[in-house]
Amino acid sequence: MANTPAVKPFLEVLSGHRQAIPPLWMMRQAGRYLPEYREVRARAGSFLDLCYTPDLAAEVSLQPIRRFAFDAAIIFSDILVLPHALGRSVRFEVGEGPRLDPLDTPDKVATLAPHADFKMLEPVFEALRLVRRELPPEIALIGFCGAPWTVATYMVAGRGTPDQAPARLMAYRQPDAFARIIDILVENSIAYLLAQLAAGADALQIFDTWAGVLPPREFARWCAEPMRRIVEGVRAKVPGARIIGFPRGAGALLPGYITHTGVDAVSIDWTAAPALIRDHVQSRVAIQGNLDPLALIAGGAALDAAIDDVLANFADGRLIFNLGHGIQPETPIAHVERMVARVRTKRG
Amino acid sequence: MANTPAVKPFLEVLSGHRQAIPPLWMMRQAGRYLPEYREVRARAGSFLDLCYTPDLAAEVSLQPIRRFAFDAAIIFSDILVLPHALGRSVRFEVGEGPRLDPLDTPDKVATLAPHADFKMLEPVFEALRLVRRELPPEIALIGFCGAPWTVATYMVAGRGTPDQAPARLMAYRQPDAFARIIDILVENSIAYLLAQLAAGADALQIFDTWAGVLPPREFARWCAEPMRRIVEGVRAKVPGARIIGFPRGAGALLPGYITHTGVDAVSIDWTAAPALIRDHVQSRVAIQGNLDPLALIAGGAALDAAIDDVLANFADGRLIFNLGHGIQPETPIAHVERMVARVRTKRG
Repeated sequence: MANTPAVKPFLEVLSGHRQAIPPLWMMRQAGRYLPEYREVRARAGSFLDLCYTPDLAAEVSLQPIRRFAFDAAIIFSDILVLPHALGRSVRFEVGEGPRLDPLDTPDKVATLAPHADFKMLEPVFEALRLVRRELPPEIALIGFCGAPWTVATYMVAGRGTPDQAPARLMAYRQPDAFARIIDILVENSIAYLLAQLAAGADALQIFDTWAGVLPPREFARWCAEPMRRIVEGVRAKVPGARIIGFPRGAGALLPGYITHTGVDAVSIDWTAAPALIRDHVQSRVAIQGNLDPLALIAGGAALDAAIDDVLANFADGRLIFNLGHGIQPETPIAHVERMVARVRTKRG
Repeated sequence: MANTPAVKPFLEVLSGHRQAIPPLWMMRQAGRYLPEYREVRARAGSFLDLCYTPDLAAEVSLQPIRRFAFDAAIIFSDILVLPHALGRSVRFEVGEGPRLDPLDTPDKVATLAPHADFKMLEPVFEALRLVRRELPPEIALIGFCGAPWTVATYMVAGRGTPDQAPARLMAYRQPDAFARIIDILVENSIAYLLAQLAAGADALQIFDTWAGVLPPREFARWCAEPMRRIVEGVRAKVPGARIIGFPRGAGALLPGYITHTGVDAVSIDWTAAPALIRDHVQSRVAIQGNLDPLALIAGGAALDAAIDDVLANFADGRLIFNLGHGIQPETPIAHVERMVARVRTKRG
């Protein structure tokens, strides 16, 4: 099946061709809102064990495709596997989020390994090959990594933080040390993404969850420029590689971001201003988004109105329907079904 | 002194007149980064006791003026005194933030008192009168309240929440109940702000700290429209009342917000895109902001660059120099002094 030539609507949109019915997937679609995911998760040991066990990672990547026939699967993994392969300690504590050994002084930064041990990430590549083999030919497969800025916020602080203050302060106070972390992440992200393409990914998404906390000068230096280098580095080896950026919260900095980075698409969060996006972003690249994940929890008339807003705002152009951020664990499956039906029956 | 006619540069900017040296104050300038504040706070009992003790509240409001000769004093208080006067239980637990009895069902909302007991807020008005009496005539006095949306996020959840999910979900699921909370806050905010003007406030700022989490449809309904009603209601009694909005994180929704609400100025956070603000916001109202509070913690060359960015971006138009959010407790006083000197020696 994987060798059958087939049109993938998701890739069509990334290649410049609007689809009458927007292709559809959900960030974090392989996740805790699904009972079949929770069942696999319960027997996988730790969260990282699940990421590093190819048949289980492949299984949970495929579950939402079987249930909802989404237009894209995303490989089940985590943005922190790259720092893990760079030799950093990474633990996921239940209900607590990730914990790393903080990289919070220039002396510690100087000890950071320049090259990841990609053998540690071989299970991710194997999971991609397994998913590729099982996936219907019209469904795209997405590989991903975290953007250097967002990954660095966890590496510096050693954990998630409400305002990313530790990384922001290091960037202000010790910009050379902070730049070393970013540079190492840029180079290793390029290699990691290329290996995901080689393992069968059709497109790549780069998650910059915390892009929205930086002032314009810092955003340009720590988000947009590293992203430009990653896009350039990947395409130097794989010309035409399809790349989606997700600088969450970038707002009115998005038009400059797409110009600078050369991405094929951006994912937009639910707070984006429609006119700005249409006139200055969607006019030049595809967009992906942007339903409020809380509307999906709420359901009912509020969900219908929120879906219709996304379609009214963006479906006249190149749109991949998605949420503005990951689906939350408490989301009822019936609401996802309602969303899928509504998006696919509203014809353009 | 209070009766001497004097030009207040802060009010000049709000009235349409750019100042060569932008007037300057800091959100949360009466606060824990000052040893003289910590000294008063230590003998005040609870945080609310400090808010409700006129001579102490006046004293801490005046401290930053004495130290830095800022162009505006803001009355020391909290946005949650209004729900308190509406009969809600409000406690501030040390290191924990505010705690209220959650107003999280339509049945509970139905019991919400429609009218605040403004006798409870008499200490705030008395503190305003005391500050007015002591303040040099060229220094403006700012009264404030929270915007209905932001105050409602605390009333519904009973506490601060990372994503304001409880209020967002009530707004989606039970919009009529949520609208009742908003309507009561609108009416009582108008009365509260009018009383602050009567007690000596020269201008009003309305803090909508969590405006940035809403999609455009919800932002219009729960942030912009209530703010329009407040501006209209205040000006119906005090024509020409000067009002600053601070819909933090509104980003590219700001141009629509200023048109709809009729505010004289908006405070902008440090992530705002300069071209958008200049072309579509500052061209029509004054702006206030927008130094990253973390640059003020960092100090040194990073602080100088961040200050210069604010001035380069916005000082050609009507600007009140400020931070993009409140000053943080760990900020060195020497950095504040450096900022004040730099802003006041860069002539326009």
